[in-house]
Amino acid sequence: MRLPAKNALKVLASAAIFIPSIVSADNQDVIDYREHIMKTLDEQTAAVGMILSNAVPGDNAAAHLQAIALTAQIALKAFEPKVPGGEAKPEVWSNWADFSKRMNEFAKNSLEAAALAKEKGYDDPALAAKIVDALPCKSCHDVYRKEKK
Amino acid sequence: MRLPAKNALKVLASAAIFIPSIVSADNQDVIDYREHIMKTLDEQTAAVGMILSNAVPGDNAAAHLQAIALTAQIALKAFEPKVPGGEAKPEVWSNWADFSKRMNEFAKNSLEAAALAKEKGYDDPALAAKIVDALPCKSCHDVYRKEKK
Repeated sequence: MRLPAKNALKVLASAAIFIPSIVSADNQDVIDYREHIMKTLDEQTAAVGMILSNAVPGDNAAAHLQAIALTAQIALKAFEPKVPGGEAKPEVWSNWADFSKRMNEFAKNSLEAAALAKEKGYDDPALAAKIVDALPCKSCHDVYRKEKK
Repeated sequence: MRLPAKNALKVLASAAIFIPSIVSADNQDVIDYREHIMKTLDEQTAAVGMILSNAVPGDNAAAHLQAIALTAQIALKAFEPKVPGGEAKPEVWSNWADFSKRMNEFAKNSLEAAALAKEKGYDDPALAAKIVDALPCKSCHDVYRKEKK
């Protein structure tokens, strides 16, 4: 089942009548689901990018980084089913040890950056570098993503 | 400054040279920033919608709901600057007491749903209804959002 974001509310509204049961996701569902996760990360890192570039204030930095850490953990689980397709290269599964190590580091480093932002406040001079280190989007996408133009 | 999601990485890569300082966001920045937050919520609720409709397994439900709660708190702060535009109706600011109450309830209820998912597991029969209650996207959008077609 394809589920564009704007139809989610309809599904939510009608879903209360279902009781969760054994689920066998079909391949397109698996792909759609992980794309919702990766788009979440796109939007969150874009927001953090605006903070880093001083376009908007940084009060939310810690909360963004916590949400990113949670979403990175979700992402790793979302890629566990070996279902090539979407923008994922087959290397995700053929190099799973490396892919999952990177995802776990991404989650761990985002959480550490969140802790630093919480403890020291957004103006701490070490924070920007820590955040950039925590979000290695490009280096991972270069290996594991084939972007659709 | 407009910052599409796909340019976020470039900003992140170049931002390490900046030290956070006093920020005066211009109006378009304020709008772009909050739109990244609301799109995050779109994607996250779409993912939760897929879980609720049994399209994919629910192992990540608690993490999604925690991330949504964090993002709801971020969203409220992102709407604090009184900058009409984008898809926000002027009622966001003229009814601020109601708007902020709804946003705070959204955050609180999402966190409670996350706690229930964590404690009882995704198969608890009360969870689906709790999640639907926690995510009142449509009722709030009906009042406060003018969707761009």
